[in-house]
Amino acid sequence: MINSESLDSKTSKHIIVDLGDRSYPISIGPKQISLVDLNQYIQGGKVLIVTNETIAPLYLSSITAGLPNKQIDVVTLPDGERFKTLDNLNSIFTKLLEKNHDRKTTLIALGGGVVGDMTGFAAASYQRGVPFIQIPTTLLAQVDSSVGGKTGVNHPLGKNMLGAFHQPIAVIIDTDTLTTLPERQFFAGMAEVIKYGLIADYPFFEWLEANVEALIRRDPLALSVAIERSCINKAKIVSADETEQGIRAILNLGHTFGHAIETFQEYQGWLHGEAVAAGIVMALDLSMNAGNLSQIDVDRGKKLISMFSLPVAPPEDMSAEAFIKLMLRDKKVFDGQLRLILLRSLGDGYVSQDFTQAWMDATLAKFCQS
Amino acid sequence: MINSESLDSKTSKHIIVDLGDRSYPISIGPKQISLVDLNQYIQGGKVLIVTNETIAPLYLSSITAGLPNKQIDVVTLPDGERFKTLDNLNSIFTKLLEKNHDRKTTLIALGGGVVGDMTGFAAASYQRGVPFIQIPTTLLAQVDSSVGGKTGVNHPLGKNMLGAFHQPIAVIIDTDTLTTLPERQFFAGMAEVIKYGLIADYPFFEWLEANVEALIRRDPLALSVAIERSCINKAKIVSADETEQGIRAILNLGHTFGHAIETFQEYQGWLHGEAVAAGIVMALDLSMNAGNLSQIDVDRGKKLISMFSLPVAPPEDMSAEAFIKLMLRDKKVFDGQLRLILLRSLGDGYVSQDFTQAWMDATLAKFCQS
Repeated sequence: MINSESLDSKTSKHIIVDLGDRSYPISIGPKQISLVDLNQYIQGGKVLIVTNETIAPLYLSSITAGLPNKQIDVVTLPDGERFKTLDNLNSIFTKLLEKNHDRKTTLIALGGGVVGDMTGFAAASYQRGVPFIQIPTTLLAQVDSSVGGKTGVNHPLGKNMLGAFHQPIAVIIDTDTLTTLPERQFFAGMAEVIKYGLIADYPFFEWLEANVEALIRRDPLALSVAIERSCINKAKIVSADETEQGIRAILNLGHTFGHAIETFQEYQGWLHGEAVAAGIVMALDLSMNAGNLSQIDVDRGKKLISMFSLPVAPPEDMSAEAFIKLMLRDKKVFDGQLRLILLRSLGDGYVSQDFTQAWMDATLAKFCQS
Repeated sequence: MINSESLDSKTSKHIIVDLGDRSYPISIGPKQISLVDLNQYIQGGKVLIVTNETIAPLYLSSITAGLPNKQIDVVTLPDGERFKTLDNLNSIFTKLLEKNHDRKTTLIALGGGVVGDMTGFAAASYQRGVPFIQIPTTLLAQVDSSVGGKTGVNHPLGKNMLGAFHQPIAVIIDTDTLTTLPERQFFAGMAEVIKYGLIADYPFFEWLEANVEALIRRDPLALSVAIERSCINKAKIVSADETEQGIRAILNLGHTFGHAIETFQEYQGWLHGEAVAAGIVMALDLSMNAGNLSQIDVDRGKKLISMFSLPVAPPEDMSAEAFIKLMLRDKKVFDGQLRLILLRSLGDGYVSQDFTQAWMDATLAKFCQS
């Protein structure tokens, strides 16, 4: 195995997520699956790779080839958010036990956000905690879910309701995996990229506006910049507030609306990033109701989102009542009080303390059929 | 509500489990369920009490009476180790979601070790972590499982294989609950009490030898001493090594054998404490094989265990091969190497580094039919 830095220093980027003794590196660049030596992260003799039906044929053999002296077991899950269930989580535990994996095992998540979230939760819970490595293969997972240690599964009554904070020991982002990503999934990932610009990084928001075309044609350099900048923003926020006692919540811009949409569609309609895109537009509108944003600001955010063919309004069949009911189950509800992420200005998100029902009613009235 | 210290200071005892910002109090004594004001520990407006069919009729109304201003929901599980499953865990999540419990909810475990372990794991996983209170009602739970933050459920292929370290915010031990405890369960709890004497507290071991009769007739003062001393020993060990990187493992004296017995019986034969009792006797024999204990030491341990009508040998139908196969799945196995807890002397347990197969073969040959 060749260390990535010696061979490919111009295109490989390295970020550290600073969490004391739980700090870990993120490697970003082309060919990272081949270039990064996984053995440096693996203590024991056994590895379980969790992947899905779509990704396994593309990259699984590259991973196993790099681990010649390990017992490698594989769980291949069906592909899709609706399979992120406690039952499928249990299939990971069953494989680990059948193959006698002990506490020194290492789990590897090879796939998108569903695979990463489930593998992470399995690693958090198996024998009360074993290490795991994230190798995200979708844009969404690369810029968001693979970094920060949020893991979990869905419950029929709510998304990501069961889980743990469990940090990976390394994140390996191979930008070449994006060349095989379907366009719809690629665009869905852009919703989270845009989010970082909106909540924390106005210069990045402007850069995105200026580079829409390069991003749409997946120019490798533009992608690499977008992913690195997203990960830097995420790493900074996670380092400041690992378990979301405060500021980390701004990463949820648009997500309270988005989760309600996904739950309403029983995880079988829009992709996560699509639901978040519509949710972000609603959150921009709410921020305008709160007196923070101008119509021009809202329109800039909405336009950037729409450039990536993402929805800018909720599903037509979803009522204001459905939103209210589902949002009250969101994790960001405290004692019946909905907390929402708003913007003070483009590039400056905050957790609303002074949120009033009238703003919400106005936004829901605007976006939902009565 | 009346604070316990003002009314009952002579019989109520208080221990702190020292874990920095996760430290918590253990209250021990008669009438603690009525005397301790739970409201001091509960932040939000909602509480979920998890209990079982046996305990609910006895103590549930006392708990709810003390929480007049809370929304109280209840999950009543069937009673028994075989119900400590992922499916039953999910029934707790379903109730929490149906009743719109948010991150400020507090879970209360009212029952034995099964209820405590499941409630703790539910609290660890619900919305990635909410607080919970332990109110253990069996001797086993009072002296062992309710203290220390180990939570989890069983998998068909292994006991306690899925779980989390999640500390309670308070433990309330009402010794009056032992008056209704069936004799078999009471004796099973004594196995863990004896364990503390063997691994860490020789004076306590001698005290137990001298007080067998008082304990068997459940003399309140003797019980109170035994529970407090057990909790002090456990709190000390947990404080030194919360997530079992080292010394905490000595709490597992007899448990590797015991878990193998329970798995062999598919959790439908002996009680946990009974399996551990037989396991402790096997571990004493192994410690003699290792050259640490004399036959007199082994016989003293074995005699004390047998005084409480506990088994001192594994089930007759369990072979040496069955032990080996099941023990290799134990959490204390690292990379195929079985780690066992042995005694240097009575009152001095350690994690074996120099464990050899010959000692194990000799012990299994002695205890198992070939």
